[in-house]
Amino acid sequence: MLRVGVVGAAGRMGATVCRAVDADPDLELVAAVDPNGSGTPAPAAGLTVAADRAALSESGAEVAVDFTHITVAEDTLSFCAEAGIHVVMGTSGFGPERVARAEALFGAAGGAASGSGRRSNCVIVPNFAISAVLAVRFAELAAPWFDTAEVIELHHDRKVDAPSGTALSTAERMGRAKAGADRGAGTQWAPDPTTDLVLPGARGAEHDSGVRIHSVRMRGMLAHEEIILGAAGQTLTIRQDSYDRDSYMPGVLAAIKAVPGLDGLTFGLDRVLGI
Amino acid sequence: MLRVGVVGAAGRMGATVCRAVDADPDLELVAAVDPNGSGTPAPAAGLTVAADRAALSESGAEVAVDFTHITVAEDTLSFCAEAGIHVVMGTSGFGPERVARAEALFGAAGGAASGSGRRSNCVIVPNFAISAVLAVRFAELAAPWFDTAEVIELHHDRKVDAPSGTALSTAERMGRAKAGADRGAGTQWAPDPTTDLVLPGARGAEHDSGVRIHSVRMRGMLAHEEIILGAAGQTLTIRQDSYDRDSYMPGVLAAIKAVPGLDGLTFGLDRVLGI
Amino acid sequence: MLRVGVVGAAGRMGATVCRAVDADPDLELVAAVDPNGSGTPAPAAGLTVAADRAALSESGAEVAVDFTHITVAEDTLSFCAEAGIHVVMGTSGFGPERVARAEALFGAAGGAASGSGRRSNCVIVPNFAISAVLAVRFAELAAPWFDTAEVIELHHDRKVDAPSGTALSTAERMGRAKAGADRGAGTQWAPDPTTDLVLPGARGAEHDSGVRIHSVRMRGMLAHEEIILGAAGQTLTIRQDSYDRDSYMPGVLAAIKAVPGLDGLTFGLDRVLGI
Amino acid sequence: MLRVGVVGAAGRMGATVCRAVDADPDLELVAAVDPNGSGTPAPAAGLTVAADRAALSESGAEVAVDFTHITVAEDTLSFCAEAGIHVVMGTSGFGPERVARAEALFGAAGGAASGSGRRSNCVIVPNFAISAVLAVRFAELAAPWFDTAEVIELHHDRKVDAPSGTALSTAERMGRAKAGADRGAGTQWAPDPTTDLVLPGARGAEHDSGVRIHSVRMRGMLAHEEIILGAAGQTLTIRQDSYDRDSYMPGVLAAIKAVPGLDGLTFGLDRVLGI
Repeated sequence: MLRVGVVGAAGRMGATVCRAVDADPDLELVAAVDPNGSGTPAPAAGLTVAADRAALSESGAEVAVDFTHITVAEDTLSFCAEAGIHVVMGTSGFGPERVARAEALFGAAGGAASGSGRRSNCVIVPNFAISAVLAVRFAELAAPWFDTAEVIELHHDRKVDAPSGTALSTAERMGRAKAGADRGAGTQWAPDPTTDLVLPGARGAEHDSGVRIHSVRMRGMLAHEEIILGAAGQTLTIRQDSYDRDSYMPGVLAAIKAVPGLDGLTFGLDRVLGI
Repeated sequence: MLRVGVVGAAGRMGATVCRAVDADPDLELVAAVDPNGSGTPAPAAGLTVAADRAALSESGAEVAVDFTHITVAEDTLSFCAEAGIHVVMGTSGFGPERVARAEALFGAAGGAASGSGRRSNCVIVPNFAISAVLAVRFAELAAPWFDTAEVIELHHDRKVDAPSGTALSTAERMGRAKAGADRGAGTQWAPDPTTDLVLPGARGAEHDSGVRIHSVRMRGMLAHEEIILGAAGQTLTIRQDSYDRDSYMPGVLAAIKAVPGLDGLTFGLDRVLGI
Repeated sequence: MLRVGVVGAAGRMGATVCRAVDADPDLELVAAVDPNGSGTPAPAAGLTVAADRAALSESGAEVAVDFTHITVAEDTLSFCAEAGIHVVMGTSGFGPERVARAEALFGAAGGAASGSGRRSNCVIVPNFAISAVLAVRFAELAAPWFDTAEVIELHHDRKVDAPSGTALSTAERMGRAKAGADRGAGTQWAPDPTTDLVLPGARGAEHDSGVRIHSVRMRGMLAHEEIILGAAGQTLTIRQDSYDRDSYMPGVLAAIKAVPGLDGLTFGLDRVLGI
Repeated sequence: MLRVGVVGAAGRMGATVCRAVDADPDLELVAAVDPNGSGTPAPAAGLTVAADRAALSESGAEVAVDFTHITVAEDTLSFCAEAGIHVVMGTSGFGPERVARAEALFGAAGGAASGSGRRSNCVIVPNFAISAVLAVRFAELAAPWFDTAEVIELHHDRKVDAPSGTALSTAERMGRAKAGADRGAGTQWAPDPTTDLVLPGARGAEHDSGVRIHSVRMRGMLAHEEIILGAAGQTLTIRQDSYDRDSYMPGVLAAIKAVPGLDGLTFGLDRVLGI
């Protein structure tokens, strides 16, 4: 059993992670850290919430999961790098500079630093929804082999922005994959056939990638994305449906189990999934 | 067995109708009329193509199917009204004036003319694709009971206009049904939540009906329409797929079998379907 | 504003109805009845829960909604019939005998009793999920016009029975509609083509209706039903998705608003929806 | 421009390949070989059909595409291996023994034979439908990360076997991927929850892989496959639609362009696609 500590255990996400770790037969929850809830009962495993990250090393945690705030999450990284504890970083806000600092601590994946004093790995994950991560990755892999592609994202009718960030990044990655295609795959999408646009907007949003995006806002839905790719006589559709807020948990558990086998710093869940 | 004659039997559509009628166990092809192919073998039933509509009455046809051209199709109507032969009119181009003239010949459905000298019925059908006709009708019936609705139409990437005519008429009919709702159904769609439109066009085409329309153009596809309706905690999706050009034939056969039981002039396949 | 009272207001469903009625601009919550919660604050509208149905007439309620238990629900019917209050009956367990007793109280829809002493209407609704009710109804209306039809129902992986009750009733109603088709629609499904069944069960469950049923059990899903109908060159797909437990509320509100305009006793939400 | 010759050019598939090669701006059709049509005009490029494979080397073809019959297809392999011409083998019927003989001619991919006298590569492709090949591959990649998975295959109602060969191989590959999962992915599917099987067959076909298969037969459809995978709060759906018989052509063109960059013998289109 892998020994796991959770930093931010008194927060909503951290508490859910505590319970999920506790319920997983391959994992053992050994430490719950949160200055805010210090001394109260931890959400699982009969533990008491500790005030300090020292509880991680004292409990022999092999992996620390951090769901805190960007202002303190980097402290978890330096503490764990020093202590030789692997990190799954779920706190959002890691831009290029912070990622670079994390790489300085844990080493680049496959980097020359291997074999030096470095003793633990880290994975920073902006999106834990495993089905969304796979959908985008598959769309990227498929893009070179099709002539046309469009993205339809569907969300509840309280979402104020359109298109969704995920749809934008899907289109971007598909466009890059298409442009860089080799080995017999085309590098150009077929042109848009529309010459008679009866109503503006009907063809969705134009995007630099050449992949048009359509945003549907629908009462009753949560978060869904559909990518359609077409070639002569055939289409491929990749669809992801998020039905509730628990959908990040399988990704968190996968990352915890994978991080000891990674190499230095890894960014993004798809790298963890090995595809 | 219902005795059927086809006017325009030498044309592409008429020939297909001849074969479909011949293959149907409830129908008998008794006349094939077409001035252009006069004297050549008819596409089915061992008949010879006749030059003149007189072949309809001479053969004892009970129903005439017309796939000709709008310039001669009205002659079929007057001939058949006179001869007491029912008509399934498949020729396109019947606007309000021509429909009014047809009504003068055959009488309004349920009209007082019933019982007068009128002896046959007529149905004018702009779209024989039975699944498309049902999809639009169901969307119209469902509209009053939902808070949000959008239409996605998907076509091959040679289609130059967007949105499709069917999508426009779907939205129009849904909007009218919503506005006229009673018996506890809402008469207003929920407002569009979008305040941050990152890319123009993402939210599809705005339409007077309040139903937004998204047009996808995809290599490999033919003609597809998806209508999504949403209410608290649930959605209803109605989707129609046309896979090939034969998709009008079930509608033609249904209209032939139904027309003797109609009453005067009927417009549109959904009335024939009785829903 | 229609004045509404809720019987069973302290239960989970009744409380949700109280809040939904209170939030609807066309409805006013005027009474909350529940012997179990008597004297406590009602879930909405600043009311106190009353012990007795007398609160309905005292508050001038025009419609009573009952979410109680089958053992006491019939008392609501007799009280309201006497008091001239319309009833929306959401309590489950109304079999043929109980429905017959309700009909004796409120009169058959369109029955001769109209104009007699009867002063209020009642609707008994076994399923309030408006999208499910519409999906089944549309499948029934479409059945006569297609050659093949199958039902796929998809539920979460804690559901122990297969197929779902809704799928069974969908197939049943489609089969009946197909068999009774007239006006040019076929009365027979095309035969199953399978002569080489490599794995038993692949073709789903055979059902008397001739409509095969496939049951998918999937982690992450809730309750979904897809009905596919096929004819030459085309298919029609009707799909219903329930994303959460609130999905019955639009149906309840629709029934409340519709019941004053009904006639005597009505059974089933589709009759309320007028389709 | 890559110089391409087609063996079996007078057959239905070979002729289509001739036209597709001729229409592709990156390819040049330089030879059309078919003993049966020898001396007649080739389907494209103003060529005459040659009786003999010698036309391949005489025309300077760099790639030969073979759509013939298993009884003569191996002659194409030995001719081309000798002549240093790459081969795209589209003829079906290559079982393990024939594949082994092809490997003896062209060398195993990445094998030590590289650098020896071998001068050309070969790819043997049992299924050229690029969208089907990708769908299966993505399902395999996704399998380890989900708790439940089922396959629905949908075909026209003339298909006599069920489940389809593709569905069987999809389930098999998913099962193997699941069982061999590592890096934090589960190796076991969640158990089937069904304890009350109201109708036999409802839960589809059981398969050794643990992935159940449902076969739908539907008038109007051609060939479609849908793979659904579920985890907490989310699903991933991968769907492939084949609309007509041309759907193999993009795969053929991709294989032609890729084969010069491969290494010895390759089996299956997914290897060509590099994923």
